[in-house]
Amino acid sequence: MRLAELSRRSGVPTATIKYYLREGLLPPGRRVTATQAEYDDTHLQRLRLVRALVQVGRVPIASARVVLTALEDDSLDHNSRLGTAVWALPHGPEAAADDPSQEAARRTVDALLERLGWQNAREYGADSPAYRMLVTAVGTLARLGYPCGVADLAPYAHAGRQLAVADLDLIERYESPDEQLEAAVALTVLYEPVLLSLRRMAQAEESNLRYGPEATQA
Amino acid sequence: MRLAELSRRSGVPTATIKYYLREGLLPPGRRVTATQAEYDDTHLQRLRLVRALVQVGRVPIASARVVLTALEDDSLDHNSRLGTAVWALPHGPEAAADDPSQEAARRTVDALLERLGWQNAREYGADSPAYRMLVTAVGTLARLGYPCGVADLAPYAHAGRQLAVADLDLIERYESPDEQLEAAVALTVLYEPVLLSLRRMAQAEESNLRYGPEATQA
Repeated sequence: MRLAELSRRSGVPTATIKYYLREGLLPPGRRVTATQAEYDDTHLQRLRLVRALVQVGRVPIASARVVLTALEDDSLDHNSRLGTAVWALPHGPEAAADDPSQEAARRTVDALLERLGWQNAREYGADSPAYRMLVTAVGTLARLGYPCGVADLAPYAHAGRQLAVADLDLIERYESPDEQLEAAVALTVLYEPVLLSLRRMAQAEESNLRYGPEATQA
Repeated sequence: MRLAELSRRSGVPTATIKYYLREGLLPPGRRVTATQAEYDDTHLQRLRLVRALVQVGRVPIASARVVLTALEDDSLDHNSRLGTAVWALPHGPEAAADDPSQEAARRTVDALLERLGWQNAREYGADSPAYRMLVTAVGTLARLGYPCGVADLAPYAHAGRQLAVADLDLIERYESPDEQLEAAVALTVLYEPVLLSLRRMAQAEESNLRYGPEATQA
């Protein structure tokens, strides 16, 4: 298909597609004349992922390029490609290395991972951006006067574990390994607001049960 | 205590405290001379919450003021104050009302809530910002080519329900109703990165189990 049809079928304006092509987020089409190129379903599929990352996940263009490069890295196996791509996603601001709350937070997180037996996380430690994100969050909680220990974190880790099973089950519905990798990255980002909104709605349910007009303890 | 001590004990610069006072995020101290005021532990505690909201949660000042006003509204009971405060937190951008993906997303969310039997959420419907956040997320998934139905969302809702129980258990450790309300708002915001980082770490564990070098299906 030509650029105009790629735009129509994807719902992405042609100027935006040209921008993604220039930035290397979308592979070039097959050139058919000096001024025209031909695109196919792989472009359509890749546009879907780029929009998920850039428009919804607010992933910076440079980070998106790293994510997409990892997905195409033939030197890595499926598991490593997925890990590399998810590591390249934004993980929020990190605490300064000299923040005194960070050292205690690191010990708490390490103790949690040991108790959980999460081998992968223990192996990569601070090389993993998700590990650093967790240490920053635990350190911030302590610094603001809401210290949390291993026992406080455990229910969130157990929920995370269940979510990961649901995530990978969803992803395995896609047939080809390439589609699975794209879906893994897109759904990691796109299900975050699903999860956070459901947690807030569930809090209201639980609060109502405990403190609402029909609660027995009211 | 005087302003300087409030600054020292909270770790918040005096200029920032003065800004919070001017913006109404912190109640005025008890005036002792024409130029000096006396602050107490309630100010220290309130500063903790303001920092959680503004510095970590990136809640806009105007929204933070609405959250704090709700917490102090004597005309509301405990459950309603909590609900009003959490509703005032940011919930992300909402889809345009005329977005065609939204109507189908709303039906999916309504069917999910009916299946879950979440009375509070069904009662408030689109008045609840968390409901609108979920509809936007489900609509975006569909629009980007990752449609999700009630069965896909159910595991995330079940995880949300367990998280809400953990959240309210944490909050009930605080003794006074006022402290509980402040903790509820702060922990809703501060545990979001905890949850999202643990989900990403758990994904790596699950991916390693399914596709890693020691996976049986490898």
